[in-house]
Amino acid sequence: MNQGPTTHSRIAWAKWLPILAWGRAYDGRQLGGDLLAAGIVTLMLIPQSLAYAMLAGLPPQAGLYASMLPLLAYAVFGSSRTLAVGPAAVTSLMTATAIGQLAAPGTPAYWEAALALALLSGGILLVMGLLRLGFLANFLGHPVIAGFISASGLLIAFGQARHVLGVSAHGDTLLELLPALWHQLPMLNWPTLMLGGGALLFLWWSRQRLGRRLRAWGWRSGLVDVLGRAAPVLAIALTTLAVWAWNLQDQGVKVVGAVPQGLPSLTWPTWNPALWSSLAMPALLLSLVGFAESVSVGQTLAARRRQRVEPDQELLALGASNVAAAVSGGLPVTGGFSRSVVNFDAGARTPAAGVYTAIGIALAALLLTPLLRYLPQATLAATVIVAVLSLVDIAVFRRIWRYSRFDFSVAAATLALTLLAGVETGLVAGVVLALALHLYRSSRPHVAEVGQVPGTEHFRNVRRHAVNTCEAVLGLRVDESLYFANARYLEDCINDAVARRQQLKHVVLQCSAINDIDASALASLEMIEVRLREAGICLHLSEVKGPVMDRLSRTSFLQCLSGQVFLTHYQAIAALAPEGLGK
Amino acid sequence: MNQGPTTHSRIAWAKWLPILAWGRAYDGRQLGGDLLAAGIVTLMLIPQSLAYAMLAGLPPQAGLYASMLPLLAYAVFGSSRTLAVGPAAVTSLMTATAIGQLAAPGTPAYWEAALALALLSGGILLVMGLLRLGFLANFLGHPVIAGFISASGLLIAFGQARHVLGVSAHGDTLLELLPALWHQLPMLNWPTLMLGGGALLFLWWSRQRLGRRLRAWGWRSGLVDVLGRAAPVLAIALTTLAVWAWNLQDQGVKVVGAVPQGLPSLTWPTWNPALWSSLAMPALLLSLVGFAESVSVGQTLAARRRQRVEPDQELLALGASNVAAAVSGGLPVTGGFSRSVVNFDAGARTPAAGVYTAIGIALAALLLTPLLRYLPQATLAATVIVAVLSLVDIAVFRRIWRYSRFDFSVAAATLALTLLAGVETGLVAGVVLALALHLYRSSRPHVAEVGQVPGTEHFRNVRRHAVNTCEAVLGLRVDESLYFANARYLEDCINDAVARRQQLKHVVLQCSAINDIDASALASLEMIEVRLREAGICLHLSEVKGPVMDRLSRTSFLQCLSGQVFLTHYQAIAALAPEGLGK
Repeated sequence: MNQGPTTHSRIAWAKWLPILAWGRAYDGRQLGGDLLAAGIVTLMLIPQSLAYAMLAGLPPQAGLYASMLPLLAYAVFGSSRTLAVGPAAVTSLMTATAIGQLAAPGTPAYWEAALALALLSGGILLVMGLLRLGFLANFLGHPVIAGFISASGLLIAFGQARHVLGVSAHGDTLLELLPALWHQLPMLNWPTLMLGGGALLFLWWSRQRLGRRLRAWGWRSGLVDVLGRAAPVLAIALTTLAVWAWNLQDQGVKVVGAVPQGLPSLTWPTWNPALWSSLAMPALLLSLVGFAESVSVGQTLAARRRQRVEPDQELLALGASNVAAAVSGGLPVTGGFSRSVVNFDAGARTPAAGVYTAIGIALAALLLTPLLRYLPQATLAATVIVAVLSLVDIAVFRRIWRYSRFDFSVAAATLALTLLAGVETGLVAGVVLALALHLYRSSRPHVAEVGQVPGTEHFRNVRRHAVNTCEAVLGLRVDESLYFANARYLEDCINDAVARRQQLKHVVLQCSAINDIDASALASLEMIEVRLREAGICLHLSEVKGPVMDRLSRTSFLQCLSGQVFLTHYQAIAALAPEGLGK
Repeated sequence: MNQGPTTHSRIAWAKWLPILAWGRAYDGRQLGGDLLAAGIVTLMLIPQSLAYAMLAGLPPQAGLYASMLPLLAYAVFGSSRTLAVGPAAVTSLMTATAIGQLAAPGTPAYWEAALALALLSGGILLVMGLLRLGFLANFLGHPVIAGFISASGLLIAFGQARHVLGVSAHGDTLLELLPALWHQLPMLNWPTLMLGGGALLFLWWSRQRLGRRLRAWGWRSGLVDVLGRAAPVLAIALTTLAVWAWNLQDQGVKVVGAVPQGLPSLTWPTWNPALWSSLAMPALLLSLVGFAESVSVGQTLAARRRQRVEPDQELLALGASNVAAAVSGGLPVTGGFSRSVVNFDAGARTPAAGVYTAIGIALAALLLTPLLRYLPQATLAATVIVAVLSLVDIAVFRRIWRYSRFDFSVAAATLALTLLAGVETGLVAGVVLALALHLYRSSRPHVAEVGQVPGTEHFRNVRRHAVNTCEAVLGLRVDESLYFANARYLEDCINDAVARRQQLKHVVLQCSAINDIDASALASLEMIEVRLREAGICLHLSEVKGPVMDRLSRTSFLQCLSGQVFLTHYQAIAALAPEGLGK
């Protein structure tokens, strides 16, 4: 009996610390899968973390640091078994945009701001997790994300083009980037273009063709995948070798240079309210985008093994990961799509794979950093460009266009504004536009006059079907819940309909599609009722749903109603037009 | 045949100029009703227009000017037959608040700003009318308006208290007004309090008791009403007489003073972009509040005679009225509730009554202004206080509380913020809160697992009814249209339900309450389908509505669907669990 509280507290802890659940059942079979997956993810994460640090405008070690402690934090708090966190393309772009307005890349103030951004973002995610505000990410609807991600991919690709060309062209929008690239084009550095262009072609070829070729030669699929993932490493090794062998850095090829060897030291970001307040909005957007991406990847993978990902727990885990990044010199992190899929496919069973990956990155930071001295930035840019071009998705725009012009306009506006006005403006404008259009649509619900299908008890829209109606009874069906934004529209519809019919005696509202009626809509119904009564017309309701009826019965509306509430529309018509409906 | 274009253009004109429709059918019977109504409304409007000008911080003639040309403009463009426009309590308060931040009351700059506000508000209303944006006013939901109007009434009453006490205590919020009144209390002017308090008691008594008393004595109801409306005029006459007779202005009783005799001269507000841009937001709020109040009054009255009020035409008419106020030295106007009801009850048949009222006010401005010299401000304040206290409505809060805690929180927050942070903050915060709560509610729709009612083809929520289910088939009913804000919630619900059922083979979504599926929700459905398929589960749909089905068939979703689309949920269960459902 005295076991009770212990069990209870263990369950309570396990809810907040998923590691307690999977950690106690950890065994050798899981170890094998986790270790193999960690090896492959490490191989993939080294070039990615360097490249995304460069994309964010930070020194390369920031990328490595962001791939150690945050992974440990996620392993403790994360509810996804296979999500691989770390620096990612879109969040790195958002980091660069947010901090670029405050400090010059390469300065200590810039790195400090990146840490502050990671800390703020972590804090926001933790607060959202504790308050269970994960639903906020839902406001990044599919069209907004589609437009935003495609635009981000293009912005990143054009932004990184300068590294491949060996020129200096900066900008947060296409309006800044394209003219800058154009003006710098005559100054391009040919050795850089050779290396970068070569890496680009090789990576693109290995991504698009290599796998198919090797499989055609009878290679095992798993091995092919590993080789495919290793292509960036190979490109890095070859181009580094080339720089070192031919002293290309003397011919203007920009290299990563000296990277401090070793593990990050723990530091708490300095207290800087002015900096924090100017980073608050970017941090919020970064948090929402990172969370939306991460939770979507996590849920997709979890569902394959019938596991669960808790969105609110994911907020806590991502929050802890970002705080971990902030205190260990990293940049903002999130769950990445490609590396999580690799982790899953390579057989990772538990978040321990993330721990082993972190150890792998730590070993790389301890042992391999001297090798990065001659790594050309053009190669890193090439890996980024190849990775982000897969984000640019034309097909999704075509699909949205075919499905809904409203949604397409949201996607297109988000795309255009992100490209032309920057990531933050584009994202916020997309969300606001989506909300405005949603409210506009639901503020003009479909209201159909219904008539009886001859010989049946069914009622259909008079404009679509040959149905019977009568002059004295008007049946209206509203295809939307009634709330403040559409309540007056319903008043208008009924006023309209009544003004056109001088014989009218009864109006019956068929409420089968009304899931909710808020206080504004109730006020409108009362107003409709009063106006109809003064015009000598009775208002009736039919097919009111249970929960809606429960709420209405708590008001005086049903007592004041001049008409009745009918269970079915057929009963209403039978009672009000006993002689039957004629055309 | 060549009559066609003329008829057509006449109809087109009549749409924009309702005066063409009623004007051509105007006859003696209508003239009688309109003249009587105009007489009574003029009697009522003289003290109101003086008092609301004072409330807005403007000289008294501004109120008279706002009751001439705007009424003519409304008569030309308005679609309501009986709406009486002019200065109103809440819009005057909003005017005072908006301009008080920019100029000191009594200065020419203050009046100039009021004209600019009327012009901007008129412009906004005209643009909204031309773009048919009347639906924007719907976002002022019932709880927001209830909270805002009650708070405005209290703010006006406390703001006018200084005139009754004869002190100087200003403020836009209760936090400013109450301490100011408290500190000024020792300086109160006894003669002013006598006059103002007396007027207050007399007006309150005549409003609450007089009518009942007179009717009990057998007076005719119409005459009683006219006498009731004339009470403010009587109060004004008596107190003016008292001031004049006893030279009370020498004892500190503030009087209206010299009012220029005659009609307003037409002036165009000076071009002042800095002023206009700082007034843009207040003008927008003023326009929305004025329009919402006006259109609601107009529709209520029109319905009694089975007439129509066109919200978009009303925007044009109110816009024209405010532009007319701006060019003739008035203050922002709107359709007032009490005077429109009086107009209607007194028998007004057409907007010509408004023209006659304007003539009446013009005669008053020409002939009666010398009489206003000794009119005490305390009396005007008393008429305002008695009028606005009817705006404070406790019962509506009780009703909203009983109906919905969500809506009550919106009303209470709007009330509190309007009182404590001012009209603009309160109104905006109320609208934003209402939107946020609406989105929050619809982002967590009611999703019920349904089972078969034994022996029927009906399916009901398993938590509410004793129904049959089976391990292999899960039926879910979603009681909301699917859109971006709730799409992922549905994913979560289904992930959850699937993770808890290891025997599951089929999920059937009953779509009877789904009126719309946007692109985000479609993406979520595709994601749900893919995840279920990878877990070896088929997704089926049942009872999909026609328009929703039309859109889905334009996508590849239905082809990719692992399951089927069933016409009824019963058919789905019959096909998927042919051996029947057992508990």
